[in-house]
Amino acid sequence: MSTPATLVNPPLKDELDIVIPTIRNLDFLEMWRPFFQPYHLIIVQDGDPTKTIHVPEGFDYELYNRNDINRILGPKASCISFKDSACRCFGFLVSKKKYIFTIDDDCFVAKDPSGKEINALAQHIHNLLAPSTPLFFNTLYDPYRDGADFVRGYPFSMREGVPTAVSHGLWLNIPDYDAPTQLVKPRERNTRYVDAVMTIPKGTLFPMCGMNLGFNRELIGPAMYFGLMGDGQPIGRYDDMWAGWCTKVITDHLGLGIKTGLPYIWHSKASNPFVNLKKEYKGIYWQEEIIPFFQSVVLSKDCTTVQKCYIELSKLVKEKLGPIDPYFTKLAEAMVTWIEAWDEINSPASESTAPAAVDGKKK
Amino acid sequence: MSTPATLVNPPLKDELDIVIPTIRNLDFLEMWRPFFQPYHLIIVQDGDPTKTIHVPEGFDYELYNRNDINRILGPKASCISFKDSACRCFGFLVSKKKYIFTIDDDCFVAKDPSGKEINALAQHIHNLLAPSTPLFFNTLYDPYRDGADFVRGYPFSMREGVPTAVSHGLWLNIPDYDAPTQLVKPRERNTRYVDAVMTIPKGTLFPMCGMNLGFNRELIGPAMYFGLMGDGQPIGRYDDMWAGWCTKVITDHLGLGIKTGLPYIWHSKASNPFVNLKKEYKGIYWQEEIIPFFQSVVLSKDCTTVQKCYIELSKLVKEKLGPIDPYFTKLAEAMVTWIEAWDEINSPASESTAPAAVDGKKK
Repeated sequence: MSTPATLVNPPLKDELDIVIPTIRNLDFLEMWRPFFQPYHLIIVQDGDPTKTIHVPEGFDYELYNRNDINRILGPKASCISFKDSACRCFGFLVSKKKYIFTIDDDCFVAKDPSGKEINALAQHIHNLLAPSTPLFFNTLYDPYRDGADFVRGYPFSMREGVPTAVSHGLWLNIPDYDAPTQLVKPRERNTRYVDAVMTIPKGTLFPMCGMNLGFNRELIGPAMYFGLMGDGQPIGRYDDMWAGWCTKVITDHLGLGIKTGLPYIWHSKASNPFVNLKKEYKGIYWQEEIIPFFQSVVLSKDCTTVQKCYIELSKLVKEKLGPIDPYFTKLAEAMVTWIEAWDEINSPASESTAPAAVDGKKK
Repeated sequence: MSTPATLVNPPLKDELDIVIPTIRNLDFLEMWRPFFQPYHLIIVQDGDPTKTIHVPEGFDYELYNRNDINRILGPKASCISFKDSACRCFGFLVSKKKYIFTIDDDCFVAKDPSGKEINALAQHIHNLLAPSTPLFFNTLYDPYRDGADFVRGYPFSMREGVPTAVSHGLWLNIPDYDAPTQLVKPRERNTRYVDAVMTIPKGTLFPMCGMNLGFNRELIGPAMYFGLMGDGQPIGRYDDMWAGWCTKVITDHLGLGIKTGLPYIWHSKASNPFVNLKKEYKGIYWQEEIIPFFQSVVLSKDCTTVQKCYIELSKLVKEKLGPIDPYFTKLAEAMVTWIEAWDEINSPASESTAPAAVDGKKK
């Protein structure tokens, strides 16, 4: 990769932030340097705020630890999880860009079947800039891709598609399995490169993984709340799932699209299935009621913005899921706090005192 | 292909018929010989019944021309199209097998990226024998495939899936485009091999192509009616679309699944776009109303069999689509005739005088 094309003219260079939640030194960025270096990074440091996270030379970044989050959000910081990658959504909150790409620090550059290194970010941008087709299934997958189109029988009135809000990328090597599946299939690796991008149809929920995810922050940002997970909470590893369920219901309501498929990243290390089982077990149990809830959610017509949708959803969560466990009442309240924090940080008045400047460590 | 594995122990050999509509000699079967020869063929000869269709030596087949169809069905033969590949559904009607694979005579054996010839029939059988997952999207595609599974966040209660009714295969080389797209992109070829099988989610319609299609006749056979097309009708090239819309609505209602993706066949020859445009133009216009109709169809709870679903659907077609054009009233009536013919030919009483024996030309 001596002169990657992306360095010449990186797409959306000034309109996209890369958000990385981490508890360790970010050496993984070395492998991503050809693709990420032109972009601004927002690093959300989880865990011990006194620890110093090393960021490789040459990257432009701002870094927030727990003390920063508490100072910037005050009492509203309670909606940001601690000791869980759910803290990444703080980065979405403080970004001032139109697009977000978020990636885990155990994700490396994958290769396509020809052996070429995959620029995951470029593919996410490509996905986000092309429309989605949630209203009717196209059997040749993404109709906007080179060499593909809408097949016979696809209604012409639907061929303009809808704006794409989310681009959900996949993982080669370690698949994103739950703890029971990890335990049953400890050696399973994902080696299948499926050369497709597709829209998840309207009305269909999917398990959104936060490991390798792009989205249009202007279109859907306030729905990308990763919930209450980790420290002090009865559940973990459902942060991205929660965000995915909420996001899918809201994109469906607002006429936006979600794409999944390419790009792949190389997921290097399986997390401990025994630890995961402890984090997940309530989620595994609860999701049997949560999924039917989200499948039946109907938002009212006056929910014309993501914020309004999200507030209405929080009320439904409290009403319908609250009876399952007090956790959901707390979560519903945190959803409201999140929107309040979003609006506060992202109000026109706060633009001039962007929190990024408060404690940003720019190089 | 000196000793293909399929010859050793062909799966479902006595439970599957291959249905081929044609107007020409079936030389294309030579290429399929290693994969098809163990199976029984039902050839539906379209057009001039006095013409003799040559079938390569060694295939076990029965052949029906228009005279046979008229004799076997009597006045009910009016529901079987003439001079259109829609006539293939007569083969579904007279089959006595549990599974059907239907293929066009301009479809040849494709190769996978490793250069290996693809046994399309074996892949369809594989698809049909594994469950479908229409209730929730799995981001790693078919979870029952080797090397794949349900990803984190997939509800455990849904992991048994539902029975698969249809396996929809794709096409390399000439893509299945409508006439306008053919005209705009005359040179476009599908060269992308997407190594995936997926379930089309519940509630989502898709454009079903009849070129390379497998289905479980016991589960969904009576819905596989290819409508009134071709000779004497105002429309063509919507036969498989019609069957697909009806089938999808009924599988959704009955809790069955439809898979799409692998296997690919090699589609050799693009049909004439100008001729196609003439056949399609009313369909292109009408589908703008037909699709919303099918998207909104709700079948009543007492539709517990495919036949009952189909009869109810025929009433809705007459009521809701009839006002568009008298054609839909005629089509709705033909849907009823089709079910009457299906029940007559497939009643236990008719088993002993299977029409296949009446004029079957077995070798």
